[in-house]
Amino acid sequence: MKLKEYCGVCGIYNKEEAANYVYLGLHALQHRGQESAGIVSSEDGIFYEQKGFGLVHDVLGDEKIIASLKGKIAVGHNRYSTYGDDSTSNIQPITAQYGLGKIAIAHNGNLINAYKIKKKLVEEGAIFNSSSDTEIIIHLIAKSRFSNFMDRLVDALKIIKGAFSLIIMRENELYAIRDPWGFRPLSMGKLNNGAIVFASESCAFDLIGAKFIRDIKPGEIVVVNKDGISSYNPFEQIDEHRCVFEYIYFARPDSYLWDKDVYGVRKRTGEILASESPVDADIVVPVPDSGVPAALGYSNTTHIPLDFGLIRNHYVGRTFIEPSQSIRNLGVKLKFNPEKGVLKDKRVVVIDDSLVRGTTSRRIVKMLRNAGAKEVHIRIASPPVVSPCFYGIDTPTKKELIASSHTQEEIRKYSTADSLAYLSLEGLKKVVGDKGYCFSCFTGDYPIAFEK
Amino acid sequence: MKLKEYCGVCGIYNKEEAANYVYLGLHALQHRGQESAGIVSSEDGIFYEQKGFGLVHDVLGDEKIIASLKGKIAVGHNRYSTYGDDSTSNIQPITAQYGLGKIAIAHNGNLINAYKIKKKLVEEGAIFNSSSDTEIIIHLIAKSRFSNFMDRLVDALKIIKGAFSLIIMRENELYAIRDPWGFRPLSMGKLNNGAIVFASESCAFDLIGAKFIRDIKPGEIVVVNKDGISSYNPFEQIDEHRCVFEYIYFARPDSYLWDKDVYGVRKRTGEILASESPVDADIVVPVPDSGVPAALGYSNTTHIPLDFGLIRNHYVGRTFIEPSQSIRNLGVKLKFNPEKGVLKDKRVVVIDDSLVRGTTSRRIVKMLRNAGAKEVHIRIASPPVVSPCFYGIDTPTKKELIASSHTQEEIRKYSTADSLAYLSLEGLKKVVGDKGYCFSCFTGDYPIAFEK
Amino acid sequence: MKLKEYCGVCGIYNKEEAANYVYLGLHALQHRGQESAGIVSSEDGIFYEQKGFGLVHDVLGDEKIIASLKGKIAVGHNRYSTYGDDSTSNIQPITAQYGLGKIAIAHNGNLINAYKIKKKLVEEGAIFNSSSDTEIIIHLIAKSRFSNFMDRLVDALKIIKGAFSLIIMRENELYAIRDPWGFRPLSMGKLNNGAIVFASESCAFDLIGAKFIRDIKPGEIVVVNKDGISSYNPFEQIDEHRCVFEYIYFARPDSYLWDKDVYGVRKRTGEILASESPVDADIVVPVPDSGVPAALGYSNTTHIPLDFGLIRNHYVGRTFIEPSQSIRNLGVKLKFNPEKGVLKDKRVVVIDDSLVRGTTSRRIVKMLRNAGAKEVHIRIASPPVVSPCFYGIDTPTKKELIASSHTQEEIRKYSTADSLAYLSLEGLKKVVGDKGYCFSCFTGDYPIAFEK
Amino acid sequence: MKLKEYCGVCGIYNKEEAANYVYLGLHALQHRGQESAGIVSSEDGIFYEQKGFGLVHDVLGDEKIIASLKGKIAVGHNRYSTYGDDSTSNIQPITAQYGLGKIAIAHNGNLINAYKIKKKLVEEGAIFNSSSDTEIIIHLIAKSRFSNFMDRLVDALKIIKGAFSLIIMRENELYAIRDPWGFRPLSMGKLNNGAIVFASESCAFDLIGAKFIRDIKPGEIVVVNKDGISSYNPFEQIDEHRCVFEYIYFARPDSYLWDKDVYGVRKRTGEILASESPVDADIVVPVPDSGVPAALGYSNTTHIPLDFGLIRNHYVGRTFIEPSQSIRNLGVKLKFNPEKGVLKDKRVVVIDDSLVRGTTSRRIVKMLRNAGAKEVHIRIASPPVVSPCFYGIDTPTKKELIASSHTQEEIRKYSTADSLAYLSLEGLKKVVGDKGYCFSCFTGDYPIAFEK
Repeated sequence: MKLKEYCGVCGIYNKEEAANYVYLGLHALQHRGQESAGIVSSEDGIFYEQKGFGLVHDVLGDEKIIASLKGKIAVGHNRYSTYGDDSTSNIQPITAQYGLGKIAIAHNGNLINAYKIKKKLVEEGAIFNSSSDTEIIIHLIAKSRFSNFMDRLVDALKIIKGAFSLIIMRENELYAIRDPWGFRPLSMGKLNNGAIVFASESCAFDLIGAKFIRDIKPGEIVVVNKDGISSYNPFEQIDEHRCVFEYIYFARPDSYLWDKDVYGVRKRTGEILASESPVDADIVVPVPDSGVPAALGYSNTTHIPLDFGLIRNHYVGRTFIEPSQSIRNLGVKLKFNPEKGVLKDKRVVVIDDSLVRGTTSRRIVKMLRNAGAKEVHIRIASPPVVSPCFYGIDTPTKKELIASSHTQEEIRKYSTADSLAYLSLEGLKKVVGDKGYCFSCFTGDYPIAFEK
Repeated sequence: MKLKEYCGVCGIYNKEEAANYVYLGLHALQHRGQESAGIVSSEDGIFYEQKGFGLVHDVLGDEKIIASLKGKIAVGHNRYSTYGDDSTSNIQPITAQYGLGKIAIAHNGNLINAYKIKKKLVEEGAIFNSSSDTEIIIHLIAKSRFSNFMDRLVDALKIIKGAFSLIIMRENELYAIRDPWGFRPLSMGKLNNGAIVFASESCAFDLIGAKFIRDIKPGEIVVVNKDGISSYNPFEQIDEHRCVFEYIYFARPDSYLWDKDVYGVRKRTGEILASESPVDADIVVPVPDSGVPAALGYSNTTHIPLDFGLIRNHYVGRTFIEPSQSIRNLGVKLKFNPEKGVLKDKRVVVIDDSLVRGTTSRRIVKMLRNAGAKEVHIRIASPPVVSPCFYGIDTPTKKELIASSHTQEEIRKYSTADSLAYLSLEGLKKVVGDKGYCFSCFTGDYPIAFEK
Repeated sequence: MKLKEYCGVCGIYNKEEAANYVYLGLHALQHRGQESAGIVSSEDGIFYEQKGFGLVHDVLGDEKIIASLKGKIAVGHNRYSTYGDDSTSNIQPITAQYGLGKIAIAHNGNLINAYKIKKKLVEEGAIFNSSSDTEIIIHLIAKSRFSNFMDRLVDALKIIKGAFSLIIMRENELYAIRDPWGFRPLSMGKLNNGAIVFASESCAFDLIGAKFIRDIKPGEIVVVNKDGISSYNPFEQIDEHRCVFEYIYFARPDSYLWDKDVYGVRKRTGEILASESPVDADIVVPVPDSGVPAALGYSNTTHIPLDFGLIRNHYVGRTFIEPSQSIRNLGVKLKFNPEKGVLKDKRVVVIDDSLVRGTTSRRIVKMLRNAGAKEVHIRIASPPVVSPCFYGIDTPTKKELIASSHTQEEIRKYSTADSLAYLSLEGLKKVVGDKGYCFSCFTGDYPIAFEK
Repeated sequence: MKLKEYCGVCGIYNKEEAANYVYLGLHALQHRGQESAGIVSSEDGIFYEQKGFGLVHDVLGDEKIIASLKGKIAVGHNRYSTYGDDSTSNIQPITAQYGLGKIAIAHNGNLINAYKIKKKLVEEGAIFNSSSDTEIIIHLIAKSRFSNFMDRLVDALKIIKGAFSLIIMRENELYAIRDPWGFRPLSMGKLNNGAIVFASESCAFDLIGAKFIRDIKPGEIVVVNKDGISSYNPFEQIDEHRCVFEYIYFARPDSYLWDKDVYGVRKRTGEILASESPVDADIVVPVPDSGVPAALGYSNTTHIPLDFGLIRNHYVGRTFIEPSQSIRNLGVKLKFNPEKGVLKDKRVVVIDDSLVRGTTSRRIVKMLRNAGAKEVHIRIASPPVVSPCFYGIDTPTKKELIASSHTQEEIRKYSTADSLAYLSLEGLKKVVGDKGYCFSCFTGDYPIAFEK
């Protein structure tokens, strides 16, 4: 059970078959959300939309469906749906008709004052068709007293607080926005024909043959329309708080994010981890796939050879019919199988990118020992997760975060490993820099408090 | 191409498996709308909903789906979707969250000032997720300054004008409402256990074993909740304008409506038609199924024997893949087949309930002649349709209504029949009474004007 | 619970978009089987097939599916699947590859020596992929020692006994065959372009604009291929035994069958029934739709007016989710609703085409009385069904046939009717003729015995 | 475009919820075939089956479906369907009824005399419902003159030649068989309760918690029924010819096969490759995932650091809607994305497990150079593929195998790499041993010739 990213967003302006490009972009962003997917396109003032529960391919992977999404401008979204949100009306992009016409919004992030604003809106007579934060943003735009869209947008954005990387589509223009804290990523790319693409991560650009141009800046609004590209910075400048977990786990290793290459960051965490917490062992075994770059770094630094003692089953579906005569640890077995030939009689350092509840680590230690490992040492390429996230990540409650209430030694005991060590926060800062990030899941210090 | 009724509605209060009863009720009302169906149920403050395009059986006919609709209170809707409304967000019942909690509305009818109200709401900052009139009603309730639901409801209803037979569900109560003109039907029934049922037509009660109690009165609001049944009449009393076309075509013949039995009304129109426009002929042939009661009345009065010269194919699906080497008149052939043994060398009076565009009549005359009929006389058991409906019926434009611009003789020529006659308006009034009905599709005199 | 016909078959030779025409033909034959549908077409030696469970429209009603069935020759089938046959391998047409190439067979009927032949084939090493009789016929053709297809076909057909109306497709030719007893119907029609069509009933020709040419004769094999149409009569001539129940219930009233018009036959049974068993009553009420023609005949003869006291719900789907707090008689209510205005205080003669188990009659009598009927007299337009059918009809077991073990008075009592009468066998023979039919379900005298 | 394995098979005897275990086993074997899946179970003499096109999860991953597959004995199959075999009748396991009852066969492999036998069978009157080899085996068993199943089975198996690893289910017993050459794998495992499992690879045992017992021997028939486990060796012993490509590419790295651990074999090929064809470079980059173990071996031996310069997108679906304004190399981009941070200015050795057509290598070289690689050296961890396989692998035609007609230097030029080298056949033999394998795709020397 890893943390879950809520969403990936992608939009394109001024390209024939825009929806098809967004569809491919959503594929590249599938790791950011697997529960639902949707695309809205625009042509001649009409919005075309297709949404549903399932992977991008299941929901949208049909020639007829893609062809029905007409126009040269489109926005898409995929999403990890949170508990209780299993209504189709919550599938993004959220669309509505309001005083200035039509609008579609794809949102990655989480508002910390959503409850308060929604309460006020409802008291004033607003009606809600979904339980998503995104509908709040539309209401604020719709209710703003300004006559001009940009003024209304800024008016609305100044009311909301929290994490929001947004792509907004109007009939003939596309907006890309990041909150002033810059919690979640959002980048701009360009296709050969000059068409502008926005996406949560640069890996989406690679797939469709677009060139990465730059990240959207914290607090920036980028507009692309018939007049070209414009940039606005309506917010007071505040300290950046980019989610460091994007580097640790969420972002695809082949994405280039915030002036760093994700894969390189991960490898470097393994190197620092090795220097902080070396161990006498025979092999370094990554928990695939997310632990691989750190394991490589750890191996390079310690000169303990890397070996693949855990094999991942990539065909594993999302739901299983567990036999009622239950098979022990089926969940973990479905994902990983130990490689006995590698592990037998070996002292193993197993590298994972993070440790959240501790249950997976415990099962993996057991699996490795059953496969013949003589010693199992856990090394985690990030600091202990002690506090939940309020900025767009689906974390367990504080109680379920094992490091919030257990010492490192207690966690080791629970995991049954011979030793266990985390990358220190200082170590992490050595890799990414000590400024400009949100480290709150490791520290409990929140840049903005959640408002009830 | 007959006229299309927009919808059928059904709701139930205080019955285990409420959704299943509503499901059966919607089956009985399937003739009022075949394009989409939906049910919303309520239990412990949570709304459960299932909606989709297709017949009631296709959308909801699955044990798992029905079982997922928990609670002892439920409301359902089926609908003929109008052009351009092919978005799932338009499928009723429409639900929303607003200042007083949750609400679900099923609406049969059409507001004549929807455009105006929506414009104003949008200017004030409202956002719309559907293009349905029903969402307007929810906005008006949500925006009302009253603190009490009933006050807000009355406040909202006094703003809207037009045809509205509504079933509204709140967390723990059910409302049945008819507009002050009383355009569309809505009845109340009771199950053995005392559970109250509302439905567009009494045939829904028969299916689920409920007893018909009475029609909801024009301008009446009936509420059923833990305190029992209450009735409110907040509107000034005005002249009733019940849609006479319910008797002529829409309602099921086995429904009991507005103190009359529908089948009996239709048979009587045939009798009056016979006395007004007799003809020397060998057989009376109904256009099945809607022309049958009138044909029986015509036959009884004229003593010309009834015979079934047109057979209807009841398995015809809704969409056909027409061979590109097209078969002539496939549409009509798919519905009807002439019975040569009956028709050969006969002088035929063919009885239909109404004549809208004239194209079907023309094809039927041709079909009857090809099958051997010596003469074909058309008799229509309602007056000429000269004006479109604004109160919940999908009529063609005035231009397409053949009687709006052609004389009876011109229509006869177009139909290629040997003679053609309509029931007179006076004749119709002899059957149903001359007061209390909306005859505007026959007269062009509208009780309330459409507002742009 | 009426008797069930097993199947309808349709084939076409030498028409562009052959599969589309067969698709329409199967629509017209939908009443002969609603559980599965299939089409196989042929082009350039390749067979294209689509089959599935459901109505013709559900299984095949998709442009892509129809377009995938290439070629100018095609054969189709729809089928009422019998108990236990819920495997897709039993859906017809059955196809196979054998010594002379490819073959597809659509079969309407039932072999009485299937068990014996199959046993022998299996002993000789044959394998079976389905439990259908049809696969036996393919085996016999495949195993015949003749080198020529026609010789093999005749060889095979001489082994099988029972009811078989077959359409057989080879790569470039189409065969239509009826067994020597002529149990089941099969007709030949022609399209404007000269293309030949075969179908179980002529109503299929009407729909696609084909002209009825003639019935296939008992024991006749008609071949249509590039050399034109040829007819073969390889069997010794025996007495015809056409299933009289086709006239009574199965065939569509608008079909022209065995030199008679089905509707006319049914009306005439009502006339004879009236003269045999008149009753003093106020109205004649048909059980819709199959009892309508006989009711008309009964009314014409007795001068008791026809009236529609039972309304049929044509949208009823095939499966219902019955509330666990069950509604009494839901099954019958789903199909029929009584028309109180018609029935109140009336002495009613209710006319049905046949009476099989008695349960439906019993429920209808109750329904009519509850609706106000003062007296209810049942008149059945066919003789008592006393014996099951072995020739292609799904009859209940002898034990379940109420007339096999009960006197007419006992049945009346069970039905709770005031009086009950059947058409006599002599009466039926007056209508259809006393020679050339299989009356075995009324007499228990079987033209060929079932072989175990 | 890699080679494709035709199938994976799995069977279980004497376990409650047998089908569920087989379902999980098929998941573990998903890599052996992704186009269709099926399970047949047996209880009380009745076979229950579910088959369809798609991944195991799509076809069978539903509680209702699994629950419908009753019994304690089951057999399953997943399959890569070859061109033209898109008929459901070809989806395995193939079932039939024959002289001794019911039979279901799951087959991994390919018969080289199928054409000949089928021709003879067809001449003798056999009919075929599928185009699969497997139906031939059923025919041979059905036609055998022996009265006892085992005698019939041996009789049939002595007629067929080629690759066949079979699991055969009868009403109450399960058979596991490998052809005398032992081309394809098949292993036996045991669950805690003693239930016997057969599967193509041991990774299926790991998932369901079964213990690997041993491989089925070439030419061995293992029977498990109420009398326990028996083994038969009816064939003359001949030289083993185990498919060496199982080690190179097909088998999952975590499977234990033919007394070797697959992952270890692959790593060792990389080591030998390194010693045979070293190169002066900065990093070793595997083509993920299949090239990873060999790359690790290559890196370990050369001390050139391993790094992940190509990232694989694991969510890629199987079909894509390519924009008509096509994006160059979309296919490869969908699978891989280069890691610029790793590649920039580096001399790269890229390791792949095999090279078939050369097109993927060419695209990868280009991708690596575009991402900044200074030099690209291709090293292939298996010998050149020069001849197609007739024993159960889907290879391109000889013409499409680039090494069949091009020198190594020509292939290098085509690939645009700076250097290119293959593992020598001798090198491969050093890893796996020089006896007991089929090397025919590398040599063109076939142990048994294909018979037309």
